[in-house]
Amino acid sequence: MKTNTKIPGWKDKILFTPGPLTTSPKVKQAMLRDLGSRDFEFIGVIKGIRELLLKAGQATSDEYTTVPLQGCGTYALEAVIGCYVPQDGKLLVVINGAYGHRIAKIASVLKIDFETMEFPEDQTPDPAQIQAKLKSDPNITNVAITHCETTTGIMNPIKEVGAIVKAAGAKFFVDAMSCFGAVPTNLAECNIDYLVSSANKCIEGVPGFSFVIAKISSLLETEGNARSLSFDLCAQYKGLEANGQFRFTPPTHAMLAFYQALLELDAEGGVEARAARYRNNYETLVKGMRKMGFEEYLDQKVQGYIITSFRYPKDPNFSFEKFYEALNERDYVIYPGKVSNADCFRIGNIGRISASDVRDLLGAIRDVIKEMGLKLL
Amino acid sequence: MKTNTKIPGWKDKILFTPGPLTTSPKVKQAMLRDLGSRDFEFIGVIKGIRELLLKAGQATSDEYTTVPLQGCGTYALEAVIGCYVPQDGKLLVVINGAYGHRIAKIASVLKIDFETMEFPEDQTPDPAQIQAKLKSDPNITNVAITHCETTTGIMNPIKEVGAIVKAAGAKFFVDAMSCFGAVPTNLAECNIDYLVSSANKCIEGVPGFSFVIAKISSLLETEGNARSLSFDLCAQYKGLEANGQFRFTPPTHAMLAFYQALLELDAEGGVEARAARYRNNYETLVKGMRKMGFEEYLDQKVQGYIITSFRYPKDPNFSFEKFYEALNERDYVIYPGKVSNADCFRIGNIGRISASDVRDLLGAIRDVIKEMGLKLL
Repeated sequence: MKTNTKIPGWKDKILFTPGPLTTSPKVKQAMLRDLGSRDFEFIGVIKGIRELLLKAGQATSDEYTTVPLQGCGTYALEAVIGCYVPQDGKLLVVINGAYGHRIAKIASVLKIDFETMEFPEDQTPDPAQIQAKLKSDPNITNVAITHCETTTGIMNPIKEVGAIVKAAGAKFFVDAMSCFGAVPTNLAECNIDYLVSSANKCIEGVPGFSFVIAKISSLLETEGNARSLSFDLCAQYKGLEANGQFRFTPPTHAMLAFYQALLELDAEGGVEARAARYRNNYETLVKGMRKMGFEEYLDQKVQGYIITSFRYPKDPNFSFEKFYEALNERDYVIYPGKVSNADCFRIGNIGRISASDVRDLLGAIRDVIKEMGLKLL
Repeated sequence: MKTNTKIPGWKDKILFTPGPLTTSPKVKQAMLRDLGSRDFEFIGVIKGIRELLLKAGQATSDEYTTVPLQGCGTYALEAVIGCYVPQDGKLLVVINGAYGHRIAKIASVLKIDFETMEFPEDQTPDPAQIQAKLKSDPNITNVAITHCETTTGIMNPIKEVGAIVKAAGAKFFVDAMSCFGAVPTNLAECNIDYLVSSANKCIEGVPGFSFVIAKISSLLETEGNARSLSFDLCAQYKGLEANGQFRFTPPTHAMLAFYQALLELDAEGGVEARAARYRNNYETLVKGMRKMGFEEYLDQKVQGYIITSFRYPKDPNFSFEKFYEALNERDYVIYPGKVSNADCFRIGNIGRISASDVRDLLGAIRDVIKEMGLKLL
């Protein structure tokens, strides 16, 4: 790929990716301050973030709590896996994409007893099979699944699986990294013990920390269970409850931005309104892409509106690198694919973008197709 | 403590803390952009950061490499401890303050074989005793020490200890969290295998990531040794070397700020010039504090210019909470003490502050002493 010859910073590209995303100007401007990490005002910001995240998960503060964690989303996955599986416990990882595999990889590195249950990447996991598995193996104490599997954009049936996990007496962990805040989810109704997401996804903050929303009773059971000092969620929770402060230096600027992002989520009309905007982005995108001859990888029945995988066109002149680069030169950033058995690229529908941005992207794609001399129809 | 009744954000307080610190306007303004984490321009920023950090450590790229790591400084400590001590290795932790104890705590949680060697908080570790210890216990494969122990502000003799560790054939890890970039250090001359610091310390960036500067040969030896997926420094290094990108989402905004901060370090005249500014801050502070009757905790011979611990005045009317709060109301943030055997508070000399800011702080302290009716002399 050739390098971009424009003046650096002349104009920001629009990010149609799974994150970091395009954020609002005010979210970024909120970072123009240096607050002490133990200062009153910052303690108020942490408190506000923890409360507003519960609201976004339709959770009450007597049952659930938010534990923000410094670092990226994978850290929060590792923190939950390392804390919630007891030393003599066994984890079942339900997998239909790369992020399910990542959870299994974490369990493997942490030397936690685990088993995987794999489903094809274009299919949602079958709750009946999970139920049968839990019945056949009473050693399983913990279950993990992704909500929106970012590999493809598929939406997994967390409510059905949650009911089954609860009935089996196991703890339920949902990796909702790419969709929390944009897919209405009632944590209690889904029997979720732990859910994770990160600052730079559908809440539209900047990267720098992730967060766990945990059932308080489940979290307290894990005391002393952590395989890491940094990722000890129970200690992190107890520290925050004791004096409102982090144990270790928090990313103050990213948290100021996130608080502003949560206020903007509220101003937009909450999770339902954000879901509607993203769905509109998705529908605009898919309609336009189909018109040009692109095909989605997933069946529409299981496709979510967070991110969409498109198959490479069959025209032998198509080169993803050239396609990506030509769009990049036009200031639109799309994303490579991650599906294991098909050549795909991905376009995200999330972040501070609207249907008009999607239409601009579609126009750019149309130009690039012409420029590359591709025949799609 | 009562809450601050001023309008939030009306003016930022000046931070005389160990970090997060006061940063320059341009450092913060560098965050007003959303870059894709896999975009060309951001890859250039990562590269620039890695190179400029080597320069700050007087290290060459054929011998050393920089591995930035998402999250706070403690994460980088845990990453090094979890990677550099072999499964059958033994760690010696040299301790003269809370941050030495933190390293030992990490080793304990990670179930790594370790031993501590404790020295009083007001004394530097004795190299001869460390040498004797290494001779008496050939099982010790790894040694860890802090450079500036932020508990007191004491500067530890890393060059002398490094030579001893090298002679014993062990690996040497220096936690230079609070002083890297402001205390001239030649990594090779100090025989350092691993050094860590974080974005929001003497380079004057914002919090969000930490970094390890590692001897490449030592780092490569640790392949497959990590006790964590997130904190696998060798994998992080190999990922960065392969395509210039992070394995997991980096804090793009904090890294843009840090790159700007590194350019400003260079413009100021590099580490030597920054050392001179901080030393001037320190000398101005100590001179003014002594004049008012405050006493430093440490003997001047071992006191560094990064952060200074002052003993509580003997006047029974002194209350640290009231003192802190009164300074906070005047927009000066100081820091509580951490010394285990004496009542102290701390004042940091680092960040985008100059001697004139220190003089302003001294004036505020004088006013507060009068207001509290304290007799110090």
